[in-house]
Amino acid sequence: MSDRKEAPFAFEGLDRVLHEKARLGILTSLADYHEGLGFGELRDLCGLTDGNLSRHIQILEEAGLIDVTKGFEGRRPHTNCKLTAEGRRRFDDYLAVLEQVLLLARGDAVKVPGTNGKPA
Amino acid sequence: MSDRKEAPFAFEGLDRVLHEKARLGILTSLADYHEGLGFGELRDLCGLTDGNLSRHIQILEEAGLIDVTKGFEGRRPHTNCKLTAEGRRRFDDYLAVLEQVLLLARGDAVKVPGTNGKPA
Repeated sequence: MSDRKEAPFAFEGLDRVLHEKARLGILTSLADYHEGLGFGELRDLCGLTDGNLSRHIQILEEAGLIDVTKGFEGRRPHTNCKLTAEGRRRFDDYLAVLEQVLLLARGDAVKVPGTNGKPA
Repeated sequence: MSDRKEAPFAFEGLDRVLHEKARLGILTSLADYHEGLGFGELRDLCGLTDGNLSRHIQILEEAGLIDVTKGFEGRRPHTNCKLTAEGRRRFDDYLAVLEQVLLLARGDAVKVPGTNGKPA
């Protein structure tokens, strides 16, 4: 195994809980809406089925990234999801790594020393 | 199911073959090194075990994203991996979606109309 310090493309910060495509969509939606979003809004914004959204919401809630509140709007049950403070912090950290991926992939970042390959 | 056109956070362009964390590291490494990288170099840059790297290389090769050439350097076997033209194109497309994720997550992109949520 390599030493992490010598593995600049390991992207340890790409936490799999946040990096998964559907959950990334959910978190990105919620990042924009500080008051949170209802289940149906999230489903439509993210293009998910009810079942898929339920599963991903549960994973995000168990990871402490989102708060889920169940209540009623009039007589209809209403589920609201919003980022926790911890979720916002971890999502910000994740986005910083994504930014680094973009910089590295486009060759704008500092070149990695000590490799035998030939930089483009 | 939602109409894709109405699901701005579905991120259809985040192809799972490219989005997986280890493969994203491999592709990002190769994007910088046009001549390709050897197996050992890739393993160290990406912080992967031999077994993991082999598995991901196979997936990327089968998807047509990288070319794998096996030969010798002196008397030692040497495996070289490089992006195919198709791989470079698809990786560029993927990076454009990542950029859109960053813009949306940070509220710099055009706000999504037609939702009932309250933008931050």
